[in-house]
Amino acid sequence: MSDNDHQTITRVTCTAPVNIAVIKYWGKRDEDLILPINSSLSVTLHQDQLKTTTTIACSRSFREDRIWLNGKEEDISHPRLQSCLREIRRLACKRRNTDNPTSEVISVSYKVHICSENNFPTAAGLASSASGYACLVYTLSQLFGVEGELSAVARQGSGSACRSLYGGFVQWKLGERSDGKDSIAEQVEPESYWPEVRVLILVVSAEQKSVASTSGMHTSVETSHLLKCRADVVVPGRMEQMIGAIRQRNFAVFGDLTMKDSNQFHATCLDTYPPIFYLNDISRKIISLVHRYNQHYGETRVAYTFDAGPNAVIYTLQEHLPEFLEVVRHFFPPEVNGGEFLRGLPVNLTLLSEELKREIKMEPTPKGIHYIISTKAGPGPCTVEDPNLHLLDAGGLPKKSA
Amino acid sequence: MSDNDHQTITRVTCTAPVNIAVIKYWGKRDEDLILPINSSLSVTLHQDQLKTTTTIACSRSFREDRIWLNGKEEDISHPRLQSCLREIRRLACKRRNTDNPTSEVISVSYKVHICSENNFPTAAGLASSASGYACLVYTLSQLFGVEGELSAVARQGSGSACRSLYGGFVQWKLGERSDGKDSIAEQVEPESYWPEVRVLILVVSAEQKSVASTSGMHTSVETSHLLKCRADVVVPGRMEQMIGAIRQRNFAVFGDLTMKDSNQFHATCLDTYPPIFYLNDISRKIISLVHRYNQHYGETRVAYTFDAGPNAVIYTLQEHLPEFLEVVRHFFPPEVNGGEFLRGLPVNLTLLSEELKREIKMEPTPKGIHYIISTKAGPGPCTVEDPNLHLLDAGGLPKKSA
Repeated sequence: MSDNDHQTITRVTCTAPVNIAVIKYWGKRDEDLILPINSSLSVTLHQDQLKTTTTIACSRSFREDRIWLNGKEEDISHPRLQSCLREIRRLACKRRNTDNPTSEVISVSYKVHICSENNFPTAAGLASSASGYACLVYTLSQLFGVEGELSAVARQGSGSACRSLYGGFVQWKLGERSDGKDSIAEQVEPESYWPEVRVLILVVSAEQKSVASTSGMHTSVETSHLLKCRADVVVPGRMEQMIGAIRQRNFAVFGDLTMKDSNQFHATCLDTYPPIFYLNDISRKIISLVHRYNQHYGETRVAYTFDAGPNAVIYTLQEHLPEFLEVVRHFFPPEVNGGEFLRGLPVNLTLLSEELKREIKMEPTPKGIHYIISTKAGPGPCTVEDPNLHLLDAGGLPKKSA
Repeated sequence: MSDNDHQTITRVTCTAPVNIAVIKYWGKRDEDLILPINSSLSVTLHQDQLKTTTTIACSRSFREDRIWLNGKEEDISHPRLQSCLREIRRLACKRRNTDNPTSEVISVSYKVHICSENNFPTAAGLASSASGYACLVYTLSQLFGVEGELSAVARQGSGSACRSLYGGFVQWKLGERSDGKDSIAEQVEPESYWPEVRVLILVVSAEQKSVASTSGMHTSVETSHLLKCRADVVVPGRMEQMIGAIRQRNFAVFGDLTMKDSNQFHATCLDTYPPIFYLNDISRKIISLVHRYNQHYGETRVAYTFDAGPNAVIYTLQEHLPEFLEVVRHFFPPEVNGGEFLRGLPVNLTLLSEELKREIKMEPTPKGIHYIISTKAGPGPCTVEDPNLHLLDAGGLPKKSA
């Protein structure tokens, strides 16, 4: 390596998606390795609407690892960040020793500058840790030239992050090993397999901060008898049914299982002691609206799922989307200016029949839903080729700060 | 029997209490006999605050069985009413054939007029079926001279009614027989055993009508995996622990189990498909308040339980009642005129420390609680001796109508 290399700064920028589970992950059997008590399954959302972008710069000249999240420097010593950095460096070393001992690649000993931001507001209540850790691990792997199974690394940043390493429909297999090597994500089908599936995120105005999911699931494992029953008895069968439903593109089965599993997850939260509540009265009204809508048609056309917060994620098919969106708009009339109510993928306008409104028989709740993000399933992490899009400048510092 | 007897009308009036379960009954293994999938345990509330009064008149001259509930004539052909009437008449026949074949008692073939009313408004959201059926069965037994085990009869009117046949702390044993003969209530301890226990019913203003418990528990049995787990695995141990806590007068164990079991019951409702919600945002705030209050003292001084509706029933000890009531009044300021806010047994006034208010750290919710009924544990059904208190006149018709 020449003296000039001393100042060389290599930058890599990648993006990674958010995923929303339809069979929920709740509870760890190993807190350090982040090994779950049950398998889970999610849909990766399209990055046009929701993504994390991460630039990592690497140089012999950097004196320490540093990280900036959404423009603000954060503490790099966070154990989960350290786990991901350590694991990727370990894989990179291993690879060099075995495959490519003499190749001219970036030294694993170089320090990194990491800069990461989301294209969605934290206020949307979407867990950014999945896309965040998936993006960190994927970008590090691109930087250090690591290939192969990355999901076991991302899992050690945030459990559900492992599912964000793949597009489409993704399962995270529980695994059996105590070292976690078989607790990995696998694509069930790519997003192109079932393109008719559409997604709406109904952002509910939450009054209070929810219990963080890490501490919540810890308390659930410690105190909920029902969680153990769910993990041991219920989820294995549901995973099989859900994979079958996706492969057969059977929305009724997919939707019913999605709703049942969301409800069961929240039931185990309520069985936790002290109890954890993520659903509020608006969430409950959305649940009721979905069931009444489906009942009207005598089939499951729309399904809800809720993570660790009051926001609903709605899965439906393209053909039912315009009408259901109007139903939501009718029963949750937006604040004043409807222009900003629907964000993301456009949806055709339609008119509601008076019969449908009458049959649903609910009192409208003005301003119950703050706004809606319209999206669909999408691909896994990508590398950004355009150097203008790096979040770190040529000197390895953030282009913009908070 | 002389000709004069033709017009003789015999009247009996009794009262029976409400009970509030601390280990919940939810789910039947036999819908006709009303046999539960798990044992349950309740506290019988004092009749000074909450009771059903029933007068039954009986005469050779009555042409048909009739019933008036809260002043309004209802359909006597209701299957559960018929079950109770049939069973008591069967027991009365049996008794006459064996014990007392020649005694001059009221003929089992005479028709009855039944008049029943509650001293609490339906709006209080308290299930009146338990005290109602207990009172019906007890009054019939007094009229026909039936003695012995009545709880298996009351159970066939409304499951939880069997527990209202005893005062104090009462268990309803699941039983094993398919004919239900061993699915009966038993007193664990009388109300005098633990006189320090006090009860507050926090009446929450509910927006919408809840799912009726009969149909709700049917759907739960059909659809909730977690309910089966609860009934088979969790409740047997809890019954034992709860009986132990009562016998040892250990409020911390009694209170923790009460809260856990209420939460688990509501968890199984949420695991039902479509899900059933009985708790609303106010219920959740009460739950949160109780946990914060207990946390402040580092011990369980107050416990909540919720039945099939948003109203909270609070169990606490006499010594903690004045302060907790002030806490409730502070965080749920009453509408305008506070005079009607507290009903029932008086509670001494006290002042809240600023430290306690600060530590609980909740935003007050004005008008969240409509009013409070203050009561305690009480005795089982009683016979009313004063003939002025009959609800039916000498002709066997209601003294007042709706």
